[in-house]
Amino acid sequence: MSTNGQIAPLDASRLTIQRAETLKPIPPPGTYGYGDIKTDHMLVMSFDPETGWSPPEIKPYGPFSIDPASNCLQYCTSTFEGLKASMNPAGKPVLFRPEANMARLSSSAARMALPPFDEAALLACIIKLVALESRWIPTDSGHSLYIRPTMIGTKPSIRVGASDHALLYVIVCPVGPYFPTPPGAILHARSVSLLAVSEHVCSWPGGTGGYKLGLNYSLGFSPQLAAVKLGYDHLLWLLPHGQNEFITEAGAMNFFAVYEKEDGALTVVTPPLDGTILPGITRLSALAEVAARTIQETLTSYPEQLTVSSECRRQLTIAELRAEHAAGTLRECFGVGTAVNVVGIDRIGFTSLNAGESSIKVVDSVKPTTGKGLGVVGRALWDKLLDVKEGRDNVEGWGVVCE
Amino acid sequence: MSTNGQIAPLDASRLTIQRAETLKPIPPPGTYGYGDIKTDHMLVMSFDPETGWSPPEIKPYGPFSIDPASNCLQYCTSTFEGLKASMNPAGKPVLFRPEANMARLSSSAARMALPPFDEAALLACIIKLVALESRWIPTDSGHSLYIRPTMIGTKPSIRVGASDHALLYVIVCPVGPYFPTPPGAILHARSVSLLAVSEHVCSWPGGTGGYKLGLNYSLGFSPQLAAVKLGYDHLLWLLPHGQNEFITEAGAMNFFAVYEKEDGALTVVTPPLDGTILPGITRLSALAEVAARTIQETLTSYPEQLTVSSECRRQLTIAELRAEHAAGTLRECFGVGTAVNVVGIDRIGFTSLNAGESSIKVVDSVKPTTGKGLGVVGRALWDKLLDVKEGRDNVEGWGVVCE
Repeated sequence: MSTNGQIAPLDASRLTIQRAETLKPIPPPGTYGYGDIKTDHMLVMSFDPETGWSPPEIKPYGPFSIDPASNCLQYCTSTFEGLKASMNPAGKPVLFRPEANMARLSSSAARMALPPFDEAALLACIIKLVALESRWIPTDSGHSLYIRPTMIGTKPSIRVGASDHALLYVIVCPVGPYFPTPPGAILHARSVSLLAVSEHVCSWPGGTGGYKLGLNYSLGFSPQLAAVKLGYDHLLWLLPHGQNEFITEAGAMNFFAVYEKEDGALTVVTPPLDGTILPGITRLSALAEVAARTIQETLTSYPEQLTVSSECRRQLTIAELRAEHAAGTLRECFGVGTAVNVVGIDRIGFTSLNAGESSIKVVDSVKPTTGKGLGVVGRALWDKLLDVKEGRDNVEGWGVVCE
Repeated sequence: MSTNGQIAPLDASRLTIQRAETLKPIPPPGTYGYGDIKTDHMLVMSFDPETGWSPPEIKPYGPFSIDPASNCLQYCTSTFEGLKASMNPAGKPVLFRPEANMARLSSSAARMALPPFDEAALLACIIKLVALESRWIPTDSGHSLYIRPTMIGTKPSIRVGASDHALLYVIVCPVGPYFPTPPGAILHARSVSLLAVSEHVCSWPGGTGGYKLGLNYSLGFSPQLAAVKLGYDHLLWLLPHGQNEFITEAGAMNFFAVYEKEDGALTVVTPPLDGTILPGITRLSALAEVAARTIQETLTSYPEQLTVSSECRRQLTIAELRAEHAAGTLRECFGVGTAVNVVGIDRIGFTSLNAGESSIKVVDSVKPTTGKGLGVVGRALWDKLLDVKEGRDNVEGWGVVCE
């Protein structure tokens, strides 16, 4: 504790950097899985209830020493963020809306009863880390440096309760497309298939789906493996609600559907932030682009001239999706997120994980194209958001350049 | 991998023991918190998808080296068990139904897509650990050696998906009463107050409440802290269901209520295993005792002669509980679990965490006694189960002596 009895805040000016003695070779893009390769350094700081935040340290990547009774291992006090750095055309690393990630991490930490931290100070330290690791940033479009801030509870007691000790750290991984593509493939032509499930439910009103917590993910691993065995890439999570089943998330992505109305206008729909879905930053950005019609120019470059309606945020039932499909008005389904940017959904299966594949129904979601990849709205969002994320466009001021 | 291409099973015969060079002093009972003190040794084994289970090791208690990208830290692949060792009158350590804990750990590991293990082999290793640590077993009644098997996913990748690497370990803590009591207090006279909440929901249909996963606990820490600030010991978790609110769990305990019917018979009620509550081993044992009426003899030693009805397992709404209380027929509420054995609930508050204490309602649940501690059924279960757990009774064969 300091002499005045105050605990120390997270202070970016106290950051120390210990460089790795030897640097790792950088493997060529396409030779590693998403999130498997870590860079040379990591950012680490710890919180002690008596003294507050330790000075942040950038140091060589390596294992932690953790007590077996740690709260994070026993009770899953863990929250994380995901953001990406790309090289802009001027050769500088650029981050996409990182303040939004810092704010969400604060919110998630509070939900886990973990200590608060200074968001601007953490971001300043992350920018230093990204600058130090800039040689790792892939320059191929669609590839980037994935940044993973993580905060865990480290109180070394098995008593069931909040952790008053924490570790906040940031690791960095070069990544390519989240869903693997063959070498030379057009990235936005990759689409995925989803199995809709309601026998497992990933989030619930009054639950934690509105926060980015580690615990929201592992409960999906076993159902996801079962879906992969049935030939799907991932799950479409449903939430039973009376006689309806609300669509919540598409695997770890936010879900969007596009309907074509009688006048040729397109209606974009995505579930609202009711506490059961992650407040995704790519979701928020995609909605802003739809509302502002900034994707209109891209849209009109397509064969069909289309108007985008923006009655976007509302509950979406699986029955409605099936009805729109049956009526021929379901134009696109896609998922959005930091990991994928935007990815087309070309098939949605409806079956029980325990009942085999008897009742699978195929949704050919992308009518104007070949049935694979993104439709016109998804493609316009892919282009627009990737331009901002990769620093070719910064109209909205969303790009933060790491000088 | 072995020469025949098979991966190694968990093999108790390969257990190695490395004793600590110096042993820790054992603090007197009552001087430490529940789960804060760890003994001298721990049991550790790891799973690798290429080679299988490592030989189990008992070695000095100490920190693990864990990759920052480990699946358990990022996505909360963590499952655990809790069981207790006591000294029986012959001076031998005794475990209470440990096979049930091993079976539940298997079930939980499968739900987390963690690798399977041989339950009997793990139990054999645990018995060796308990025997080695037997000097730590408190001899005061109501005190014991708490055993915490834990299994975590250790795949060092941030890709969202199952962990094919795991660490399985067992740590041991001397413990006293879970809810602190003053020195010399009669343990079963301690009761707790609960705040009923429905704005936060700890488990739901299709969720993971039926498994003992770390992730089921941390989502309650922040609401629990808020309840403590309002003067409660813990939470009574409600699950909204149409116009009803089902009672699921009492903090980390299974919940029981006792109603007095017109003929003087007592009806014991507890929520069913519908996937939203933990299949507690103390719960199961309490129900067996009620059904077999083996607690009858204890009951008849009380002033009132009572018959116990056994229509036990059914959904229990908070409205029903309030109605029974209003009618004067709510006789007892208590929680059961490994940590507490049986603990009386003397007050249930109904308020919003955000709305202050305006609508708190007190349930004086224990009519025949002083309004504190356990009622007749809870007390009979306390006596019976503690007799078995502490090795004074083994009629059911539930006690396993560590020779």
